[in-house]
Formats: sequence, structure tokens, C-alpha cells
Amino acid sequence: MILSSLSRHLPILDWGRHYDRTALSGDLLAAVIVTIMLIPQSLAYALLAGMPPEAGIYASIAPIVLYAVFGTSRALAVGPVAVVSLMTAAAVGDIAQSGTAGYVTAALTLAFLSGAMLLALGLFRLGFLANFLSHPVIAGFITASGILIAASQLRHILGIQGEGHTLIEIATGLLAHLGEVNLITAALGVTATAFLFWVRTGLKPLLRRLGLGPRQADLGAKLGPVLAIVVTTLAVWAFDLGARGVAVVGEVPQSLPPLTLPSVSPALLSQLFMPALLISVIGFVESISVAQTLAAKKRQRIDPDQELIGLGAANIGAAFTGGFPVTGGFSRSVVNYDAGAATPAAGAYTAAGLAFAALFLTPLIHHLPKATLAATIIVAVLSLVDLSILKRAWGFSRADFAAVSVTIALTLVLGVETGVVAGVATSIFVHLYKTSRPHIAVVGRVPGTEHFRNVLRHDVETQPHVLSLRVDESLYFPNARYLEDQLAACIVEKPQLTDVVLMFPAVNEIDLSALESLEAINARLADAGVTLHLSEVKGPVMDRLRRSSFLDDLSGEVFLSQHEACCRLAGSPRRSAPLGPPADAAHEHRDERGEDE
Amino acid sequence: MILSSLSRHLPILDWGRHYDRTALSGDLLAAVIVTIMLIPQSLAYALLAGMPPEAGIYASIAPIVLYAVFGTSRALAVGPVAVVSLMTAAAVGDIAQSGTAGYVTAALTLAFLSGAMLLALGLFRLGFLANFLSHPVIAGFITASGILIAASQLRHILGIQGEGHTLIEIATGLLAHLGEVNLITAALGVTATAFLFWVRTGLKPLLRRLGLGPRQADLGAKLGPVLAIVVTTLAVWAFDLGARGVAVVGEVPQSLPPLTLPSVSPALLSQLFMPALLISVIGFVESISVAQTLAAKKRQRIDPDQELIGLGAANIGAAFTGGFPVTGGFSRSVVNYDAGAATPAAGAYTAAGLAFAALFLTPLIHHLPKATLAATIIVAVLSLVDLSILKRAWGFSRADFAAVSVTIALTLVLGVETGVVAGVATSIFVHLYKTSRPHIAVVGRVPGTEHFRNVLRHDVETQPHVLSLRVDESLYFPNARYLEDQLAACIVEKPQLTDVVLMFPAVNEIDLSALESLEAINARLADAGVTLHLSEVKGPVMDRLRRSSFLDDLSGEVFLSQHEACCRLAGSPRRSAPLGPPADAAHEHRDERGEDE
Repeated sequence: MILSSLSRHLPILDWGRHYDRTALSGDLLAAVIVTIMLIPQSLAYALLAGMPPEAGIYASIAPIVLYAVFGTSRALAVGPVAVVSLMTAAAVGDIAQSGTAGYVTAALTLAFLSGAMLLALGLFRLGFLANFLSHPVIAGFITASGILIAASQLRHILGIQGEGHTLIEIATGLLAHLGEVNLITAALGVTATAFLFWVRTGLKPLLRRLGLGPRQADLGAKLGPVLAIVVTTLAVWAFDLGARGVAVVGEVPQSLPPLTLPSVSPALLSQLFMPALLISVIGFVESISVAQTLAAKKRQRIDPDQELIGLGAANIGAAFTGGFPVTGGFSRSVVNYDAGAATPAAGAYTAAGLAFAALFLTPLIHHLPKATLAATIIVAVLSLVDLSILKRAWGFSRADFAAVSVTIALTLVLGVETGVVAGVATSIFVHLYKTSRPHIAVVGRVPGTEHFRNVLRHDVETQPHVLSLRVDESLYFPNARYLEDQLAACIVEKPQLTDVVLMFPAVNEIDLSALESLEAINARLADAGVTLHLSEVKGPVMDRLRRSSFLDDLSGEVFLSQHEACCRLAGSPRRSAPLGPPADAAHEHRDERGEDE
Repeated sequence: MILSSLSRHLPILDWGRHYDRTALSGDLLAAVIVTIMLIPQSLAYALLAGMPPEAGIYASIAPIVLYAVFGTSRALAVGPVAVVSLMTAAAVGDIAQSGTAGYVTAALTLAFLSGAMLLALGLFRLGFLANFLSHPVIAGFITASGILIAASQLRHILGIQGEGHTLIEIATGLLAHLGEVNLITAALGVTATAFLFWVRTGLKPLLRRLGLGPRQADLGAKLGPVLAIVVTTLAVWAFDLGARGVAVVGEVPQSLPPLTLPSVSPALLSQLFMPALLISVIGFVESISVAQTLAAKKRQRIDPDQELIGLGAANIGAAFTGGFPVTGGFSRSVVNYDAGAATPAAGAYTAAGLAFAALFLTPLIHHLPKATLAATIIVAVLSLVDLSILKRAWGFSRADFAAVSVTIALTLVLGVETGVVAGVATSIFVHLYKTSRPHIAVVGRVPGTEHFRNVLRHDVETQPHVLSLRVDESLYFPNARYLEDQLAACIVEKPQLTDVVLMFPAVNEIDLSALESLEAINARLADAGVTLHLSEVKGPVMDRLRRSSFLDDLSGEVFLSQHEACCRLAGSPRRSAPLGPPADAAHEHRDERGEDE
């Protein structure tokens, strides 16, 4: 019992007990490959986040180990990723200048805050909050972020200044410094970028032709960035290009991850609160979708709340070991998985490999040009850019299209934080709007049956003194008053009316607003001499109604079926109604959504 | 055609053509009664809003006429009301000191902005936005406002300083000045308050015993405040209590409503934007519910979008004639209705009466003590305070209780604007939370029938290799991932599974997030060797799915009915599943909401 509870929060106790030689060899092989791939990626994302290069390696060591202890995915590789690094640069860039001690401290603090939030969300089982980020919003956000990231790296490719956190800032920055382009840097940068694009498309077929198996060719192609880094570093070193203005990584300390402390300044914490929350949610959403995709292939289980704890621990680890915000990354995880990682121990071995690199290999990257790192970033993030989501959303529904386009436009023009928040707000608003005007059909009986259908779609029988309305949505505050308005209109339009029946087969829930609207409808109909009935009310809705006095006050009855209601109300109208317009006045209720059942 | 379109936006063209002698006499009588009642009410709400007393009368003249032209309710009386006056004081009090010209200008500007917003909402038919204010939030807000208003008037009753816009500010203000109580003012104020409470409860029975009919007695009782004002004014005048420290209304200009201009300062407009929006929405919601209640009694129609235009015109009128924000008030409208107002012309006659009062009667109120006005406010607003909404919400649902209690607590502690916004946010959040974990039942066949029911509620037949899940909610972004998680768990728990059937009879809608989740589920189940089927998909949902490639990619089929699905899948499992735990593992899916159908 205690063990099972412990292993829920410490998944390592579960897989650790069954660890064997097969798992060990799979994990070790995966670790070697991932380590080699992670070194350039870590350096590049540190550059993107505005951090010193070694921070990227540090941010991949402790987090990977802590995730291995607390996380539930067996293949997820945690470390710096593009979108989170961009968000870090945007948040910390508002507070301090890149390259200062204040910048590093703010980034550590951001990782700490984000880790604490993820941990809290996991412990209180609040992972569902991430669901408020709809798929179109995430897709739009990642696409816009990819464009922003690629644009932000152009200055490294050209060897000029020109920072910025929005597309407009970046573009004006680049234009202002366009006269200062360093031609050698630009030549290196453009060549590296072109080479890496070729690696993505041309290297794999070449390796296949050279006789490698599909999996080896795939992994070989993934090592392309390492090749670009080795070649350009050697070129800079051999021709002393650093002295000719090519920006290089420079002196990197040879050290294991240092012990660092996040700031506890309340002013800084409050400034970073909102960015940390957004980074946490975006990072979690990215990570969990990678983890679930990989887990399904082996029928393994991902526990979202435990994932929050794993990612929270990883970020807190990053904060205390010189890192910056991290999450589970798609490309590194896929490599890990493809390379045969069997357990989270593969992550621990990767961490050991990276620690070795941090201790002994950093002198080798002194001459690594920043332009090469920028090229690896650009090629990596352009695969995130997928504007087809706009077309897809447009074809599927205008509501989703609104959410995607708002997210993309505002992320590009106003920055990542505004973009995400506006996207979430738009998707919530659009949902409320859609449900605020539910489909309400006037129904009549299909002749000779007990079925009731929309009068606009079917040739059905109605009685002039009875109006039967089927409400195709749960009743809650955004649509409560709509129902009131519709019924208020009905009693004016149909003076011969004596009975209204509301059919509730599709009403899954009624909240207090809707209850009060029903009470108002009941009272107003009674004032107008019309009796209100309900039919086909679901069990849970009936239970809810019984908690109020509505059923006692209801002027009419609750019928089990619409058929029963119609039979009972078929007799002569209880009040002598004046002769009004013919009964097909009901046809004036437009069926705007054009649907039935 | 043109006339019918015109009369939609100018309802006066409709009722004006049928105006006759009966309507005229009813309207005139109502106007006299309402005018007498409105004078003290208008003065009192001007005091509450921090405006000079005459502003209250001015705010009842032009608005009432403009509403008569553009509004659709035949009985609604527009003018200053308690809650909107409180919100005005809160908004304008942040910008200028009460009693200054800047304060009056800011109030005019607030009325103008609010009028323009109402007009825009009406012209663009955006009245549904008001629906996002749920009934519990409104009830909580009005109750908390009533408490705040009553508390804010205590200083006038006691004759001391102590302003504030939150309960804490008011309480500390009163305590700080408690030593300065003016005993004569306090005696007058307490007596007037006690008298007015007695009027509410004791005067009507007394008038009945004196031989008046029920309606006359009711109207007589409503004139109680006028009596209190006459008596206390005479007392102050006779004993020269003004010289002994009793605060009086003082010099009031004898004038028709002046022509005033709102400010067009961008800084002021942007400061007042949010308060104006909240005042517009709250005012509209209050007004429309009064209008609908009164209209239903005569089977008259209220057009919510036209009401927005009417209220917008009224507020713009107030802005140009020395007023402040107005809306349709409950008590004045009920008096108007009970006094027999037949058409909006009654409002015009009331306006004429008030204009007469503004021109000739203002010298009479020079000696009117502010304490009496405060007493009328306190007695009026305490009828708004109804804490039973807390009990009612608690009994009905925790979600509604959360929204009410957050609204009440934050309105009292942090002020009206924060209170409303937090209330709306809470009710939206709670709704998203509820729908983010929809009821998903594992179903099986009731033996010998074609009915499928929850395995936890009924004794049903299931097949070990088929899992049938009924989803009882529309699928959209807050619950899309929940379904993914649930299905990811299922395929781990039931290794013998080969087919999953999702039953969609209660799914009214699918958005792009849910579509992508279904695609991910389909792909992940396929990776795990499980086929996904759908059954009982509604027409509109099917139409939506056809707009994507989901149906082409679906590994299984779409069955018309669950029965058909079960018959077709009843054969031998298509893959030889390993022997797992017995099939009733399905029972592990807790039916937390404990409901079926």
C-alpha cells in the first residue's frame, strides 16, 4: 500500500525494480547518441534564451535526472526547447540586459517559479488547467513562435545587432543595422543554414544509398548539426576568423553545473509571475503531447498530474544548477526513443555524458561561431512553422479559425505573452458565444409515429394551442436569457397559445442562472395565461431541479416523453383563445444552424 | 417596408399611431404619481453618486424622453438608480474629488461613454454579451452593492466625514470620525430611517384600515419618502438647524437641464472605459429584467437589442443635460406600471413634471437635510440585500455558490469593479472546469434488448475485447485531452482489448481541438493494435467531421446505432489477445458524478 502510493509519486520505484541487462544496453546506446545531438542543441537554445552557452548544457543535466526520478514517460528527454527559450528571452529581456548577472539571475528565478507552479499544479491535481489551451491556439502559437525565433536569429547569421521580441521590433532592428553586415559571418551563416537544410532532405537518402539501414540513416541525418559545428569551428580556428569579426562562443568555464540560487526578491517574483505561468502551461502542453505519442506506441501510461511533478522538479533543478526553464522536447525525445531508450535511466546516462562534456569538452567550442548555432536554430524551428493550420481551421469552423488567427497575429505583432493570453481568451469567448444561442427547434409529431421532429425539416403535425420546443444544449448562464427572449417572443406571436412544452433530451446540465430563467419563464407564461410543461428530462437534470422549488411552482407537468405530453394536451384548449394567425407562425423561428437531431 | 424598418428602431411610430384618450388619461395620472416619487429619489441618488442634487433631477428628464422614443418597454422608467449611482461614485471618485467641476465632467463623460457603448452594442446586436453575467453573479453583486451603499450613507446619517468605496475604507473612515458626530443630524437621520422602515411595513395596512383600496394604499405607502422629506425640511427651516451643523442640500439653481458637454480627453476616456463598460452591462441587465417582467403581464414584446439602443440614447441624453449614468429602475418602473401607465408617453409627462420642479420647486429643498436623503437611500437599498442567494446557491450547486460568494466577498472588500469582473471570471472558469471532466460511462447491453446502459448502474453484458464508452458532453477544447487521457488509460488497463466504440448521442458539437484529439486517439489506438469506432453520431456532428479527413483515417467504422456496433464486433477478436485480468476491469472507471442518462 505504502509502496504503491510511493511509486505513484516516484515512478522510478516501479521501473527501477525490473531493470536488467537488456534495458541497460538499450539505454546506454540511446544516451550516447542523444548526448552528441544535445550538445549543439543545448548551446543553440542558450543563445536563443540570451543565456551564456554553458547554461544550455547545465540546463540539460540536473533536469534530465530529476525527470527520470519523478516523470512517467519512459522516453521523454527534458531540457531547453525552442519555444520555451524564446519565452524566457521575452520575459527576462524585459527585466535585464542579456549578458549581465541580473539576466542570469532572472532566468534562474523564472525556472524556479515555473518549477514551483508545475509542482503545485501537479500536487493539487490541477493539470486540467492546461486544457484551456485549445489545439488551434497551441498550433497557432507554435507556428508564430517559430517565425519569431527564425527572425530573431537572422542577426547572428548576418553578424549584426538588432534584438527584439516582436516581428516589428526585429525587422526595424535588422534594417537599422543592415549596413554593418560582417561578410565572413554571413558567408559562414548562410552556408551552414543551406547545409543543414540539405541534411534534413538530402542526407538520409544519401546514407541509405551508402548502405545504412533506415534507422541508422535517420540517426545519422540527425547528427548533421554536429558536423556543421565541427567544420565551422575548425574553419574559424584555422583561419583565425574570430579576429576578423566573426562572433564566436568564446571562453566557456570547464565545470560541472554550479550551485546557483534563484532570487527571492518579491518585486522580481511578481514581475515574473505571469511569464512563469505561461511558460509552465506551454511547456507542459508541449511535453505531455510528446510523451503521450511515444507512450502509446508501447502501451505505456502517462499520468498528466505526475508529469507536472516531473517537469516541476526538472525546472527547480535547472534553477539551482545554472540553467533556465526547460521542458520535454520533441526532437530530443524522438531521438531518444528511436535510439532504443528503454527506461528513464537513459536520461541519467545522457546527463552523465553532458556532465563529461561540460567538464572536458568546453575548450573545444571556444571558436564555434554563433552563426552556426543560429543556423541550427533556424533549421530546427522552421519545421515548427505550419501555416496550414489556418486553412485547416477555416475549413473546419469559423470559431476555430478566429482563435488561430488571433493567436498568430498577436504573437507576431505584440509578443508571445499577449499572443497566448489573447488566444485563450478568444477560444473561451467563441465557445461561450456559440453556446449562448443554442439550437432550439419547434417540433411536431411525425404522423403515425411517436417521434417528434423539427417542423422546418419534416412534415409533422402540430396543435395550434401547444408549442413544443426542443433545446439542443445544456442550459447555463450564457444561454439562459436567450431562452427567456425566445419564449417571450413566442407568446406575443401566437396569441392562441395555451401550453408550452420544453423538450430536454439534449440538456445535460442546468445551472442556477438557467433555473432562475426557467422560473421567470414559468411566471411570465403564467401571467400571460400559458401553462409551461417539460418533457424527456434526464435523470441528473431532474435531480438538480428537485433541489429547488421549481418543480412545485411549475404551472404544468413534467412528462416522461414528448409523446405523452402531446396526448395529454391534445384535448380542447383550456382557455378560449382568440383566433390568431394560422399555426405555421412557428415557421418564423429560423433554424439558423440548419440542423436537426 | 421602410415604415416597418423605421418602427423597429423607433418604436414610438408603432404605439404613437394608436394613441387615444384612454391612454392619455392613464399616462397622465401615472406621470403625476411618478413625478412626486421621483423627486426625493433623484435627489438621493445624486447624493449617492457624489453629484450636486439637481443633477439627479436633470438625469431623470432627457433620459426618460429619449427612452420613450427609442425603448421598447411601455412601462420602464429610466433615471438614476442605486447600483449604477454607486458604480458612478466608485469610478469617478478615483479621478476627481466630489464637489469639483472635474467630478461633474467625469460623470458626464462616463454617461456619454456608457451611452455610446450601449448604442454600439444595440446597433451591432451584441446584447448577448450581457448574458455572460450569470444570475448568481448579478444577485451577489446587487446584494453586496446594497450593503456598500447602506454603509456609505451612514456618514450622512451621523453628520460626519468618512468616504470610501469598499467596506473596509468605509468602516475605517467612519471609525476615524466617530468623535465628530452631530447629535441633531443623527437624531433626524435615525428618526427618518425608522419612519421609512415603518412606512414599508406599517403604513400600507394602516391606509387599508383607513378605507383605501389595495392599489391606493400601495401607492400611498410609496409616497412615504416624500412625507419624510417635507417634515424634516420644515423642521430644519423652522428651528434653523442648518446653523447648528445639520448638513442641508443648500442652494440649488432654478433652471431647466443645462446643455453640458462630456470631455473628449483621451486620458479620461481611457480611464473611464472599463467602468463605463461595467456600468453599461450591469445597467442593461437590471433594466431588461424589469422590462421583461412588466411586459409579460401584458403579453408585450421586449427587444433586447432595441433596449440597448433606448438605454444608450438615454445615457447620451444624460451626458448632454447635466446628468450622470442612468438605467431602467425597478421601483420607479413598478410605480409607473401600477399607476396605470399605458404607453411610453407617461415618461414624457413625468419629464415635464420634473422640469417644472427643476424650474420652480428647487428653492423649497434648500433646507432638506442630507440625512433624510441618506435615510431614503438606506431603506431603499436594504430591500436589495438578499443573502439568501448564498443558501439557495449552496443548495443547488457548489459551482454557483462559488460564483456568488466570490462576487459578494470581492465587491465588499475590493470594490464594485473588481467584484463584477471576478464574478464573471469565476462563473466562466467553473463552467469550463465542469465540462472539462465530462461524464464518460462504460456501457454494456441490457440482456435481451437493444439498450445500452452504464455498467456501474445496470446488470449488462459486455465483451472482453470491446470497450464501449458513452460521452455525455459536447467535445471541445477543455475536455478534448481528458478523453485522450481516459482512453490512454483504458488501453493499458485492458490488454485484451481490440476494439473501442465511442457512443456520441449526447455530443452536440465537436471543435477542432476535439477533432485533433480524436485523430490522436485513433492513431494511438492503432499503434497499440486497437480499432476505434463511433456510434450514434448526430447529423450536425457528422457534417462537421466530414469537413476533415478524420472519417477517412478512422481505423474502424461509424455505426448508426450502438446495437449495430455490438452485433458487428461480436465475432472473434481479430487479434489473439494475451489473457489479461477479467473483463470487469471496466468497473474501475469510477462514475464520480453518480449518474446515468
